[in-house]
Amino acid sequence: MSLTAVSPSEDPADIDRSDPTAEISMRAQAFRNWGRWGEDDVLGTLNFIEPQSRIAAASIIREGRVISLAQSFDTNGPQRGWRRRTNPVHTMTDTGVDAERGTQGMPHGLGGADDVIAMPLQCSTQWDGLGHIFDHGVAWNGRRAGDVVTSEGDLVTGIEHAAAAIVSRGVLLDVGRHLRPESGELEDGYAITPADLEATAAAQGATSVVTRGDIVLVRTGQYARTLREGWGEYAGGPAPGLSLTTAGWLHRTEIAAIATDTWGFEVRPNEFDVPSFQPLHQVAIPNIGLTIGEMWNLEELSQACAASGRYDFFLSAPPLPVTGAVGSPINPVAIL
Amino acid sequence: MSLTAVSPSEDPADIDRSDPTAEISMRAQAFRNWGRWGEDDVLGTLNFIEPQSRIAAASIIREGRVISLAQSFDTNGPQRGWRRRTNPVHTMTDTGVDAERGTQGMPHGLGGADDVIAMPLQCSTQWDGLGHIFDHGVAWNGRRAGDVVTSEGDLVTGIEHAAAAIVSRGVLLDVGRHLRPESGELEDGYAITPADLEATAAAQGATSVVTRGDIVLVRTGQYARTLREGWGEYAGGPAPGLSLTTAGWLHRTEIAAIATDTWGFEVRPNEFDVPSFQPLHQVAIPNIGLTIGEMWNLEELSQACAASGRYDFFLSAPPLPVTGAVGSPINPVAIL
Amino acid sequence: MSLTAVSPSEDPADIDRSDPTAEISMRAQAFRNWGRWGEDDVLGTLNFIEPQSRIAAASIIREGRVISLAQSFDTNGPQRGWRRRTNPVHTMTDTGVDAERGTQGMPHGLGGADDVIAMPLQCSTQWDGLGHIFDHGVAWNGRRAGDVVTSEGDLVTGIEHAAAAIVSRGVLLDVGRHLRPESGELEDGYAITPADLEATAAAQGATSVVTRGDIVLVRTGQYARTLREGWGEYAGGPAPGLSLTTAGWLHRTEIAAIATDTWGFEVRPNEFDVPSFQPLHQVAIPNIGLTIGEMWNLEELSQACAASGRYDFFLSAPPLPVTGAVGSPINPVAIL
Amino acid sequence: MSLTAVSPSEDPADIDRSDPTAEISMRAQAFRNWGRWGEDDVLGTLNFIEPQSRIAAASIIREGRVISLAQSFDTNGPQRGWRRRTNPVHTMTDTGVDAERGTQGMPHGLGGADDVIAMPLQCSTQWDGLGHIFDHGVAWNGRRAGDVVTSEGDLVTGIEHAAAAIVSRGVLLDVGRHLRPESGELEDGYAITPADLEATAAAQGATSVVTRGDIVLVRTGQYARTLREGWGEYAGGPAPGLSLTTAGWLHRTEIAAIATDTWGFEVRPNEFDVPSFQPLHQVAIPNIGLTIGEMWNLEELSQACAASGRYDFFLSAPPLPVTGAVGSPINPVAIL
Repeated sequence: MSLTAVSPSEDPADIDRSDPTAEISMRAQAFRNWGRWGEDDVLGTLNFIEPQSRIAAASIIREGRVISLAQSFDTNGPQRGWRRRTNPVHTMTDTGVDAERGTQGMPHGLGGADDVIAMPLQCSTQWDGLGHIFDHGVAWNGRRAGDVVTSEGDLVTGIEHAAAAIVSRGVLLDVGRHLRPESGELEDGYAITPADLEATAAAQGATSVVTRGDIVLVRTGQYARTLREGWGEYAGGPAPGLSLTTAGWLHRTEIAAIATDTWGFEVRPNEFDVPSFQPLHQVAIPNIGLTIGEMWNLEELSQACAASGRYDFFLSAPPLPVTGAVGSPINPVAIL
Repeated sequence: MSLTAVSPSEDPADIDRSDPTAEISMRAQAFRNWGRWGEDDVLGTLNFIEPQSRIAAASIIREGRVISLAQSFDTNGPQRGWRRRTNPVHTMTDTGVDAERGTQGMPHGLGGADDVIAMPLQCSTQWDGLGHIFDHGVAWNGRRAGDVVTSEGDLVTGIEHAAAAIVSRGVLLDVGRHLRPESGELEDGYAITPADLEATAAAQGATSVVTRGDIVLVRTGQYARTLREGWGEYAGGPAPGLSLTTAGWLHRTEIAAIATDTWGFEVRPNEFDVPSFQPLHQVAIPNIGLTIGEMWNLEELSQACAASGRYDFFLSAPPLPVTGAVGSPINPVAIL
Repeated sequence: MSLTAVSPSEDPADIDRSDPTAEISMRAQAFRNWGRWGEDDVLGTLNFIEPQSRIAAASIIREGRVISLAQSFDTNGPQRGWRRRTNPVHTMTDTGVDAERGTQGMPHGLGGADDVIAMPLQCSTQWDGLGHIFDHGVAWNGRRAGDVVTSEGDLVTGIEHAAAAIVSRGVLLDVGRHLRPESGELEDGYAITPADLEATAAAQGATSVVTRGDIVLVRTGQYARTLREGWGEYAGGPAPGLSLTTAGWLHRTEIAAIATDTWGFEVRPNEFDVPSFQPLHQVAIPNIGLTIGEMWNLEELSQACAASGRYDFFLSAPPLPVTGAVGSPINPVAIL
Repeated sequence: MSLTAVSPSEDPADIDRSDPTAEISMRAQAFRNWGRWGEDDVLGTLNFIEPQSRIAAASIIREGRVISLAQSFDTNGPQRGWRRRTNPVHTMTDTGVDAERGTQGMPHGLGGADDVIAMPLQCSTQWDGLGHIFDHGVAWNGRRAGDVVTSEGDLVTGIEHAAAAIVSRGVLLDVGRHLRPESGELEDGYAITPADLEATAAAQGATSVVTRGDIVLVRTGQYARTLREGWGEYAGGPAPGLSLTTAGWLHRTEIAAIATDTWGFEVRPNEFDVPSFQPLHQVAIPNIGLTIGEMWNLEELSQACAASGRYDFFLSAPPLPVTGAVGSPINPVAIL
């Protein structure tokens, strides 16, 4: 892609905090994967997952243990209504109380309970689809945003296209535990650098080597803090997370997808002194074509990996195939 | 459980079609698993899945191929509003058209799309949770229905408890293809018997032996018919499906869960001449403690198994952990 | 407005059934009210209602009788999912069954029931707001459609602006009863002409004289047919309704608003032999600035007016002020 | 009703703050209207409205001015999720931005915008229906709560029954302005007594005499405070409101309905030192059969009445006829 010899810096201190447009643009150009999988591509970096990745991942299943990486989906969630992001509202259309009282009018003693839900697709543990973010009106693979996502949904790269894609080797990079061994939790506002990711992998050992097609899970420890202290500003407030300077790492590792235990994946406040919002998303989704997971629950997995010393596992995290969705609620499972 | 020597008949011809209450009751008593996993159990037959099942299932992953077993989740679905079961309504709160036009007020060229959904939890591919069906006001494990599912949801056996449970060996019993080799589709109203299940497994060969802890997928072919002819009365109308007489088979095989490619799992119309509704559910869910899947898409899997001659696979189908839900939308994946 | 001397024909036989664009455009230009109430106007023809209209309307309240002109809002409605127009889904978050059983955890014997709804704003009896329809990308008063209604709603002419506007004199034109005295019902596909409207008013007598600021209710009788025969294709199928040729009548009468007992206000199929859709809407809403009501229940009112021989009444039909909505569910009341 | 000679005290100082059950029960018995309008009644005190009330109310329309008494319905509302009471989520299924860009596929230049909403029926300006509150498992008119409101809704006294009822003379009792002439706002926790209501009416003069069948609007001024200071704990927190001791006044005045500008109608915290919740509701709704309005916007009306010195008006506030609803969002209008 970029023919320029100079790569964007991977040191947060080098960021020009007054010019997000330039900092983003430099990385968007350097790490753009447009056309890499053809003009019609709808999967982006999920294309890095090859059958062989899954066969290898299957071979590391040793305990037969399943760990759910989902947070709960309920009304007691972290959402505070920003841009109509609410918590799920789950209601019953039939209940056991009704059945027991005999109000359901069913024959032979049959009773039932049934339920409905109304929720933003990104209210809890989720994947961001490729149609979730645009860069100057352009979507993944160089398409015009308005050709991709209308009021009818994402007509091109809807999350349903990934329904059979997101199963691969998972690798936990427990940055919170590595950098803060006592608390296991990075402080809000901490920007995780490429060097932090590399150091964590190195410290964790051989099972943490990140390879092409992997799904990387970055634990900051912020979710652990909310379990102890309440949600607070988990949704949209200050948080540890990836620095904009990790864009190159996300690109060159050729990972298939990445997820964190935070609301917004990247460090918040973002790394600028002028108005900015989720600059790494702007590079990663429409330019790199990277599928990003947010609000994952990595606590039990963190404990298990620390105990075993093994940080890779078989990961199955297919999205719910809501036609045209730009995100999906998920229950990812790590199988150890 | 039952001390009586006489087992309920497994021949549909023996059903007293005028007395669903007795036919259900006889099987409920004979196959009741209450207390089998303790008083506090919330998983039922999912307890049959042991870590070893998953390790064994991992060992049969050979191709690294993932097949999604989900139907679509969208407004063009089969639901017709019965008991407020509608199709999903997916709407956008932000779109690419907006982003491109510059109406979003975001800095540095960032644009976004976001979406919400309103849907019954059992509108498309799904698991029925243990709180979904009651027998004479009693829920799984002998609890009073009104102690389990109120307007606040299933406070005891909510689907979230199964979040890390439903990963195991899957076995496809392609009854449609076995009994109707030319069309591959059973006709509506065809009642699948225990003998049919056994004959299908036998014909399919060694990979189809059903063992404890397996998740069995029964393909009738009805969904293939809807793909060709439109939904028609798929939701609630006539359909091939399991006979009430399979209750004993469901119990003695000690399977963890079962799913079909139909709306209602059991044969419809049900096997009675008087008003009846889903009698096998009434035995299977509250009495056997069996988790039931419905509206699965088994078409690609059917093709793959027929081509390879191998009918078992690694199956990952965790529910979305909606707190207190009595069912869950899912995207089950078979990994071959 | 138009300086041309030739007015569009008011005879349906003159419509060029091969050229909807020209037929619409001619009327859009002839009857356009843009700028009539200033550049910032958000009410359109609702501006015709003056305080004096309401005082006069109050003076014709003689019986103190209230007639609701709303259809029901429930799951058994006419919608069939077109463009995600579903029927309302009303669910309970607390019930009397729960309260009676004591599951609610409230003190001193208090119990409660509560409920939620999910519905299209135009699923049942409704007003179309001024942001509901556009003509070649242009909204009411000549604004660009994309400047008015984004994914955040109608930011300019949202229905909330009419919250205190829609109370005036109402006049029922019972065209079904006038033209079909035996059945009281126009057949589907019948195009009501300006002459029909005038003839009905004349036959009904002095109380039916339509004056500036009135809200006119046109009864076709189709809703009566659905009460007898079921919904059928009420939502979007063939129906009696206003001919495109009534556009001039709608304009020159200076009525404030108009409503019918049908799904779509205008005759369906529309009056063209080539693909077309709701051409009169395209003239009336963005060009005339007319607020249109649909799916009203005019049956009891029709009986009352026929019995008394008086066809005018005090009409209160304020929209629900949903911020940014392009339509509103309503319960209009006629006070006789 | 009660045969005892002693009436419950109307002085808040007499309340036994340790015994809500007794204080409620005494008033429930004293003021119970069960059977007053027959066994099948579904309207309660709305029966007090007679045609003559409306004719008289029409006669006081002098200005032809309409004042909306609704707050907004949008995501920026006061709800905080208590018992799944959220703010409305309004989303677009088609927009002007789409129309302008040409993505809608409509003929002859037609474009459209459409929208859906998901909301609790009592999220903003509302009526509480008769099925909203129960007293020891008993609903209005002495029916068992479980016979009235199941998961299918209020099958007996659903709000749709009041669709043509709630139009009458309205009287504003501006207690906030009367008791706090400088600020016009009662402080949170202030319990409005029967004496306060009488004194306000007396001070306001002849147009404030409350008569049978009236709809009384009590302004506390708390909503004005939220307009200035933000929602804070408007939904469920401390508030001025009616004292439990007003129950007798509500009963003997034979008013049809009553509404306030607060979330919860009664003073909060409630008047007990032990756990209690909305005790006046428990007397008023299931026992008196009184329809209660909450979250009304009485600001403009307050200004108008103070300016004119006239405090009565024609009030039209019909509920949206959602079948089986226990409450309804409304846009009440006062016509002066």
